[in-house]
Amino acid sequence: MLSLSYHQSLSPAVQVRGNHIESSSPFPSTFTRRLNLNYITSSSLSWMLKQHSPPMLPCRASLEVQSTSNRNKDLPVHGVSETVVGVLGGGQLGRMLCQAASQMGIKVIVLDPMENCPASVLAHYHMVGSYDDSAAVEEFAKRCGVLTVEIEHVDAATLEKLEQQGVDCQPKASTIRIIQDKYLQKVHFSRHAIPLPKFMQIDDFESAQRAGDFYGYPLMIKSRRLAYDGRGNAVAKSEEELACAVHALGGYDRGLYVEKWAPFVKELAVIVARGSDNSILCYPVVETIHRENICHVVKAPANVPWKIMKLATDVAYRAVSSLEGAGVFAVELFLTADGQILLNEVAPRPHNSGHHTIESCFTSQFEQHLRAVVGLPLGDPSMKTPAAIMYNILGEDEGEPGFLRTHQLIGRALGIPGATVHWYDKPEMRKQRKMGHITIVGSSMGILESQLKSMLREDIMDDQPAVTPRVGIIMGSDSDLPVMKDAAKILKEFDVPAEVRIVSAHRTPEMMFSYALSARERGIQIIIAGAGGAAHLPGMVAALTPIPVIGVPVRASVLDGLDSLLSIVQMPRGVPVATVAINNATNAGLLAVRMLGVGDADLQAKMVQYQEDRRDEVLVKGEKLQRGGWEDYLNA
Amino acid sequence: MLSLSYHQSLSPAVQVRGNHIESSSPFPSTFTRRLNLNYITSSSLSWMLKQHSPPMLPCRASLEVQSTSNRNKDLPVHGVSETVVGVLGGGQLGRMLCQAASQMGIKVIVLDPMENCPASVLAHYHMVGSYDDSAAVEEFAKRCGVLTVEIEHVDAATLEKLEQQGVDCQPKASTIRIIQDKYLQKVHFSRHAIPLPKFMQIDDFESAQRAGDFYGYPLMIKSRRLAYDGRGNAVAKSEEELACAVHALGGYDRGLYVEKWAPFVKELAVIVARGSDNSILCYPVVETIHRENICHVVKAPANVPWKIMKLATDVAYRAVSSLEGAGVFAVELFLTADGQILLNEVAPRPHNSGHHTIESCFTSQFEQHLRAVVGLPLGDPSMKTPAAIMYNILGEDEGEPGFLRTHQLIGRALGIPGATVHWYDKPEMRKQRKMGHITIVGSSMGILESQLKSMLREDIMDDQPAVTPRVGIIMGSDSDLPVMKDAAKILKEFDVPAEVRIVSAHRTPEMMFSYALSARERGIQIIIAGAGGAAHLPGMVAALTPIPVIGVPVRASVLDGLDSLLSIVQMPRGVPVATVAINNATNAGLLAVRMLGVGDADLQAKMVQYQEDRRDEVLVKGEKLQRGGWEDYLNA
Repeated sequence: MLSLSYHQSLSPAVQVRGNHIESSSPFPSTFTRRLNLNYITSSSLSWMLKQHSPPMLPCRASLEVQSTSNRNKDLPVHGVSETVVGVLGGGQLGRMLCQAASQMGIKVIVLDPMENCPASVLAHYHMVGSYDDSAAVEEFAKRCGVLTVEIEHVDAATLEKLEQQGVDCQPKASTIRIIQDKYLQKVHFSRHAIPLPKFMQIDDFESAQRAGDFYGYPLMIKSRRLAYDGRGNAVAKSEEELACAVHALGGYDRGLYVEKWAPFVKELAVIVARGSDNSILCYPVVETIHRENICHVVKAPANVPWKIMKLATDVAYRAVSSLEGAGVFAVELFLTADGQILLNEVAPRPHNSGHHTIESCFTSQFEQHLRAVVGLPLGDPSMKTPAAIMYNILGEDEGEPGFLRTHQLIGRALGIPGATVHWYDKPEMRKQRKMGHITIVGSSMGILESQLKSMLREDIMDDQPAVTPRVGIIMGSDSDLPVMKDAAKILKEFDVPAEVRIVSAHRTPEMMFSYALSARERGIQIIIAGAGGAAHLPGMVAALTPIPVIGVPVRASVLDGLDSLLSIVQMPRGVPVATVAINNATNAGLLAVRMLGVGDADLQAKMVQYQEDRRDEVLVKGEKLQRGGWEDYLNA
Repeated sequence: MLSLSYHQSLSPAVQVRGNHIESSSPFPSTFTRRLNLNYITSSSLSWMLKQHSPPMLPCRASLEVQSTSNRNKDLPVHGVSETVVGVLGGGQLGRMLCQAASQMGIKVIVLDPMENCPASVLAHYHMVGSYDDSAAVEEFAKRCGVLTVEIEHVDAATLEKLEQQGVDCQPKASTIRIIQDKYLQKVHFSRHAIPLPKFMQIDDFESAQRAGDFYGYPLMIKSRRLAYDGRGNAVAKSEEELACAVHALGGYDRGLYVEKWAPFVKELAVIVARGSDNSILCYPVVETIHRENICHVVKAPANVPWKIMKLATDVAYRAVSSLEGAGVFAVELFLTADGQILLNEVAPRPHNSGHHTIESCFTSQFEQHLRAVVGLPLGDPSMKTPAAIMYNILGEDEGEPGFLRTHQLIGRALGIPGATVHWYDKPEMRKQRKMGHITIVGSSMGILESQLKSMLREDIMDDQPAVTPRVGIIMGSDSDLPVMKDAAKILKEFDVPAEVRIVSAHRTPEMMFSYALSARERGIQIIIAGAGGAAHLPGMVAALTPIPVIGVPVRASVLDGLDSLLSIVQMPRGVPVATVAINNATNAGLLAVRMLGVGDADLQAKMVQYQEDRRDEVLVKGEKLQRGGWEDYLNA
């Protein structure tokens, strides 16, 4: 059949080229493109090897055009989806969209002016052209089943025109138009009662002065359009600095507005996904740490009270609900000292604050965006690892010295368990340019932070232990150690890293406080506390931490330890202590292993084995007793 | 600079083509290829849009050849690695290698005879040719920095020759030679004292008969070469069936051997990674379930005792240690009824039994293979989710009806939380052909198995609860319910799904046994057991399961519940029960939430909030007392 096709119609070649310029159906042209490409890729080589003759190319294509176009009209979908996703922009976001798409076998095509843009090598095809050149965008639109963006600075008018022609744009052109003008964006969200910093437009020095008088200084001045990574922002610390700040932004004609200074304590972000059925799902709230206005580190989940998480998620949800179209949206937020959440801005696309989702969530923001725009059900946005931290690899110096330092950083990252290195393969390095990113996932933020430190060489060389302890064993006095050592022994037997400390509730109350309050952040997941007599340590520690506390009553000189048992176990409602038998630190260690086993199949398997071994020991004794009789057994 | 290049040297075009056929350095040619390709992709379009004239193509390439080749000689590595990885074979394994490589910005090129092989669209370039055609392989080798395989049925002699010429092959040609001949493989491993089923070569009916006499029937007959997915295996149930089985395999001349029938209870597999520094890391042991000799389902980790895991890992480790070269290896094993581990066979490459690692492990088998062959440190092979299950999407009927049924399966998979769909984008469907796979990850195998069932529509419609309970609340009698309900209330408050059951140790011992033994497999992660008087339930249940058991002493008519407390907390060494205060089921619920919070940052944040709210309540009361005085407070 194939070999036959070689002999058919040598002529339609040009005709085909012609066709898929005019073509209105999105499919034939794209498929032709792919096939031409595919054929050229392989053929030019197979030609070198097998001396084929090049002229065969186009007729192959023409043949496929028919078959594929038919297929799409009449036949069921093969695989996940056959909708070709057209992405305006081919930067790292487009590249990571292509990576997610290739897993599902979804075809992504990109429009980007740079021939060697990051997405180029992975895209089903890359059309070289500008995403704000309407001719290019219209031409591009013919080749895809749905049109989406990885950057909001595209020609919104063209998108609106295309929508009128029936092109499926996700998110909608209206959304792009609102978001790409930061002032319109603010107006839109304030109309929808989304909390945000006060703002007003300025057209001249007088209006700027007035704004300064209203909002006070420092005053944030922003340009309405083409602003990203802090470009387009300027701060005036006083009225004197107004003119200079405005000048730095290119003058009033550029289109400027001012924002009341938002004295935030943390910057938060929420990735929100909207399905084609308008269902909305929110990713966990993350903390974003910027340096020179560029995203530097992202911590997921954010270490903020649950109330704040709920509030941030609610604001993000409402903000996205007010916009039209499917896809993922990134909502950047300010958390103020008085616990308010203010909206900073929204991006109608995957976002740097969501890169961690590739490794840490059940559905990455990139797969989610594809699911949304092609009309598949949304995936689960929740985290599959307790914590994740993302570090942006930003361009250091220009050229080779910068590459060298970056390569050394990557070398250290590759040695860190749970770290994944993403490299965008950009041809040149420029200062502050996003060259790649590193995501570390693990069992607690405390552990990840120390790993990040050592990756960045910020820690005083090797002052922290090689392995972060997962269990903290504490006791009121060294006289408890002969009992408490059994917990340490068990944890060692199960290869669970633990630390052993003396922390007295009555003699070193401050130390007890700081230990209990810092334990979780240091990566401690469970605390085993032993105490005798009026045993207050376990209960006090349990009151100061959200992690499980296991209490070991240690037998004191009097009352056989019943006093310790009752003072540990009889805790008031609200503050539980997992109490074990008097002096039975072995069971405390085993209980800690069972708790960790809930999320660690490996440990749970070890526990099953431990239980079988204990059973076998008893069976052996039983057999010995049966064989030898009770006298021998006792005399032995 | 670029625009300049357009005007330079139109002539070298052909010369360049010539060059990178002759070229010995791996880099120039590949880079040229990429650039040619890239340029053709974009240019043919930009030409249509902007009326460029095609002749410019090659000189661009020639320009880049120089720059890139220089770069590789003199300058530091940009990004992760600039070693171009050449892969013999471009099937789904090659495709997934390309996906892992694109994340790290590593360039992968593939040699495969199929123009539209799964890896073709993702490979840096795809050379169309056969991986057992030595001319093609030698030509291909010139274009890569390291040569590896995704299939072992390649021309080993050529690899040996290339190694002598200094080409870096990982794993080594010697390994490929041993493994591609199953008989040689068996001889090799038996020489290295790896346990495996007895085997012997057969060249004629007499030797086959002799084998039958030695090993008995059923007898497994295998062809030495080109065997995979069960092809090349035949079973003779009796001497009468020998001839027919041998005939089915193509006769004695094909090269046959027999294996003693291995009566296994489970098939296990271990992915083992070997770094270029010879460091070796093993992935968790998985269970593989085959259907018609093709991998059907993989469960990670395997549900076998720890001893078996250690034994399987040890055998796999020793098997791989006996082979040469870097990369990942898949070791397929039999577990026999008497707890023996026998080696079945080894694959010198990523493997179907390791697909789950993409979503479930810190480093996927594909990233690991790339790290190994390009000489980077190995990544962490351990699991980041407690459990994973992989289901192969195999071709159903030929053609469209098959595609339709597959598409319906995928539709159901997309609705399952934690499920990821991989589609290999193969042009045609054939029965039993691997078209893609689905991986589901989650908190326990029990949950995943019920999700798989509902995906495959094997469950009697909706007979199981929508959400699998994570906590089981059990009590000795309904008279305990007024106390135990408080645990259920707390779990409801924290959105933790729980089930409530009456299970008496003394009145329904069998039910207690079956409940305790099945809890973990059903997805129960923690058990809260309440009992009064001689309270044996918590301790007995703890003795029958490896998951944490929380005991609630319920106050009986006499002794104020001290009897219950002591009979629950005073457990012997080896069997811990996390005991809370008498009648304090609230604390039991909170303790369960703290335990689950160890692996669930979301729950932990909620717990922090809960503690703050309780504190605020007390502060309010304190303020009220201070304001109104103690009399008003008491009278109120």
